[in-house]
Amino acid sequence: MIGEIIAIGDELTSGRIANTTSAFAARELFAAGHEIYAMHTIGDTPDLIGEALKRAISRVDFVIVTGGLGSTSDDLTNEAVAEALDRPPTLNEEILEKIRSQLQGTGKKQSALEKLAWLPEGAEVLNAGERMAGYMLVHESTPVFFLPGVPAQARILLIDYVLPRLLNWQDSNNNHFRLRVYRTIGLPEYEINRRLSGLEQQDHVTIGYYPVNSEVHVSLTVAGNSEINPDPLFREADHHIRQALGAHIYGTGQDTLALVVGKLLQKNNLQLSVAESCTGGLIGSMITGVPGSSNWFAGGVIAYSNHLKEVLLNIDHDLLAGHGAVSGPVARAMAARLADRIGSRISISVTGIAGPDGGTEKKPVGTVYIGFFFNNKVQDTLYHFKGNRKEIQALTAQTALDTVRRALLAL
Amino acid sequence: MIGEIIAIGDELTSGRIANTTSAFAARELFAAGHEIYAMHTIGDTPDLIGEALKRAISRVDFVIVTGGLGSTSDDLTNEAVAEALDRPPTLNEEILEKIRSQLQGTGKKQSALEKLAWLPEGAEVLNAGERMAGYMLVHESTPVFFLPGVPAQARILLIDYVLPRLLNWQDSNNNHFRLRVYRTIGLPEYEINRRLSGLEQQDHVTIGYYPVNSEVHVSLTVAGNSEINPDPLFREADHHIRQALGAHIYGTGQDTLALVVGKLLQKNNLQLSVAESCTGGLIGSMITGVPGSSNWFAGGVIAYSNHLKEVLLNIDHDLLAGHGAVSGPVARAMAARLADRIGSRISISVTGIAGPDGGTEKKPVGTVYIGFFFNNKVQDTLYHFKGNRKEIQALTAQTALDTVRRALLAL
Repeated sequence: MIGEIIAIGDELTSGRIANTTSAFAARELFAAGHEIYAMHTIGDTPDLIGEALKRAISRVDFVIVTGGLGSTSDDLTNEAVAEALDRPPTLNEEILEKIRSQLQGTGKKQSALEKLAWLPEGAEVLNAGERMAGYMLVHESTPVFFLPGVPAQARILLIDYVLPRLLNWQDSNNNHFRLRVYRTIGLPEYEINRRLSGLEQQDHVTIGYYPVNSEVHVSLTVAGNSEINPDPLFREADHHIRQALGAHIYGTGQDTLALVVGKLLQKNNLQLSVAESCTGGLIGSMITGVPGSSNWFAGGVIAYSNHLKEVLLNIDHDLLAGHGAVSGPVARAMAARLADRIGSRISISVTGIAGPDGGTEKKPVGTVYIGFFFNNKVQDTLYHFKGNRKEIQALTAQTALDTVRRALLAL
Repeated sequence: MIGEIIAIGDELTSGRIANTTSAFAARELFAAGHEIYAMHTIGDTPDLIGEALKRAISRVDFVIVTGGLGSTSDDLTNEAVAEALDRPPTLNEEILEKIRSQLQGTGKKQSALEKLAWLPEGAEVLNAGERMAGYMLVHESTPVFFLPGVPAQARILLIDYVLPRLLNWQDSNNNHFRLRVYRTIGLPEYEINRRLSGLEQQDHVTIGYYPVNSEVHVSLTVAGNSEINPDPLFREADHHIRQALGAHIYGTGQDTLALVVGKLLQKNNLQLSVAESCTGGLIGSMITGVPGSSNWFAGGVIAYSNHLKEVLLNIDHDLLAGHGAVSGPVARAMAARLADRIGSRISISVTGIAGPDGGTEKKPVGTVYIGFFFNNKVQDTLYHFKGNRKEIQALTAQTALDTVRRALLAL
C-alpha cells in the first residue's frame, strides 16, 4: 500500500526536536512492503493540518498522523481533524475512565486531562494500555492512524497496532513482495556494493544499501507478480548475499548487535564482563538495554581515570606509567584483571582517545585498544577510528561487541 | 519571513536515512527570526516535487529545497523544477569549467558529471567553492534555494549563503523577534502549563511545550513590531518563567543535563563516581559523552549482578539477602562503599527493576532506589518510574544526574 505521514508540532517546524518518529515509521512501513509517497512536518496550525490530511486521504491508501494529541492548549490535532473531516469531538468514556483511575488519590484535577478523552467522531481507540492512546479513523475508505508525538509511544503503537491493521487491509495483489534486511558490520558500503553487483543486474531483485553509524544495512527486495513466484528468486538471492558477506552479517530485520551477542553468550552459558575507559559505560548500557541481559551480563568497571584503573582493576602503576593508559598492555591487563577479580571466563576492555582533546602525534584522537580475555587467553587489537567524540565512542563499543560475537561464532 | 522546506530523496521516504538537514535548517531559520510553515519529505518523483514546489511558492515568502542535485540517474530535482516552473535546463559554463578542471588528469569521463552543469533557466549559482554548488531562483518574486542533500554541504550553504540572502530580503519589520528555550526536569507538562497559563494570555508572547523523554523543554517567543519593542516584554516573561519553574529549569538552549552537572562538578572541584545496577553504564555513558568529562568524572562500577556488588563494592552478602538488591540500604551501601574504595567525595548509585521481567507485587517494574553519598553523608530515595525498559533506564539516569545537580546547587 502507499501511504503518507504527517507529523505535527511547533517543536518540529522550529527544528528544536528532530522528527525521528517519521523516519522510524517510514523504515518500518517500507520493511513491511509499503511505500511512502510523502512525509510532512507542520506546526500546530489547524488549517494546515486539515488541508494536509484531506489531500493525503484523497491520494494515498493510508495516512499516519503523529503528534498534537496531548492535554495542553497547543495540542490541536483533534480539533483540526474534527473540523476538517466534519467529525465533531465526542467524549470517549473508555479514555475518560482511564484518566479517572490514574488520577485517583493523586489529588490532581481531572479537568486538565479531560481534553485527552475528546476524540473526533468515529475514532476507534488503538490501545487499552495505561499510557496515552492512539486512535484510528476510516475516512472515505482510507484508514487514518493518529499516534502520540512522543517517539517511544508512537513506535509501540506503530508496531503493535498500525502494521497489523494494514496487513489485514492490504489488497492480496500485493502479496508477491518479499523483503529482508541484513545487518552487517566491518565492511564499507562500496565493498558490499562490489560483492553484490551481480545480484543487482537481476530482474525483480532490488538491493538497497543503508549506512547506519558503523554498520551497513542491506535490503533485499524481490517483487513478483501474478505470474512470477517471488519465493525461488528470494531464496537464491538470500543465499548469494549470505555467501558474499559471510560473518559480516550479524543479524536480520530488527536484530541489534547487543541482542545477537546476548543470545550467543546465553547459548554458551557465559556471563560477559566489561572494563570501559573511553566509552564510559556505553558498552554496558547497550548490553543492558536488552531485556533479560542479567542472564548473560555480570557488569564491570568504568575505569575512566587512571586512579580507578589502579584501585578497581589492580593495574600496576608502572604499567600505566610505562606504556600509557591507551596501550595494548593496559587493554590486556584491564580485561584479564577484571576477569580474575570477579571470576569471569569472558571479559572485554576498551581504552582510547575519544577526543576532541587528548590526542598526540603518536596516539591521535581515534586511537583505541580493545582487550579481550576468553578462556584464560588474552589479546589486544589496535584501531584508528574516525569521527567526532560520540562517533568514536559508538564505533569503539560496536567493535568491542563484534569482537565478542566473532569469538563465540568461532567456537 | 515565513518559509517552507522540501527535502527530496527516496532514501528519506524509505526511512533509511533520517532527514537531519531539514531539522537543522528549521532550527537555524527559527533562530534567525523566520517561521517554518511546513516541511515536506518526498521521493525522487518529478510530479510530486513540482507540485510541492508550486504550492510552496504560492503561499510562503521563501522556499528551501534539499537533495536530488547529484549526477546519478535518480537525481531528478533539476528536471522537475525545469518542468514545473517552465524554466528549461540551461548549461552553466561556470560549473562546467569547474567540472573540467576537477577531472583533469583523473582519467574520469566528463559526461557522467556534466549533468551537474544543467540548471533551470535563471539559476544563480550560490558558491564558487570546490564542492557541489547550490543555486537560487527567484520565481514569482519568491526566492527558492536549492541545496545538496548531503547534510554537511547543505549546512555550509545554508549558513554562508541562504541566511545572509534572506536577511537582505527581509522586511525590516521582522527584526523584533526574541526566543529562548528553557530545559526543565521534574515537572509534568500539564503542571508547567498550569504555572505559565497567565503568560500565555499575553499579547506578543507565545509559549511552547516540548516533552523530551523525562524532560520538558519550554520555548518563549516574543514577537514585537515596528511600534512594540520586544525586549521589555521578553525580560518580563523570562522573569515570570524563572520564578514559576525555579530549579526545575536546569539550562537553556542546547544545554544537556550531563553538561550542566559537569560544569557544577568542575566549579566545585569534585570528581563524581557512579555505581550503576539497573542502568548498566548509562549514567557513565551520558557523562562521558561530554568533551572534557575526565575533569569531573572518575568512573565507577557497573554492579549489575549481585556477585559484582559483593566483589567490587564490598556489599555484605547478608545485606543483599536481607533487603534484596533493590532496596534503600543497598543503594546507600553502593554509593558509600564506592566512594570509600576510591576515595571520592561524591558518588551516586542506582538499583532498580527496569523490566519487563523481575517485578513483584511489593517491588513492581519501575521501582528504583537512588543512593547518594556526598561529604560523608549518605541518603537514598525511592522512585516509581513508568514506561518500558529503556524509558525506565533513561528516567533513572536523568533523575540520578538531577540529584547531583540539586545537591551542588544547594551549596
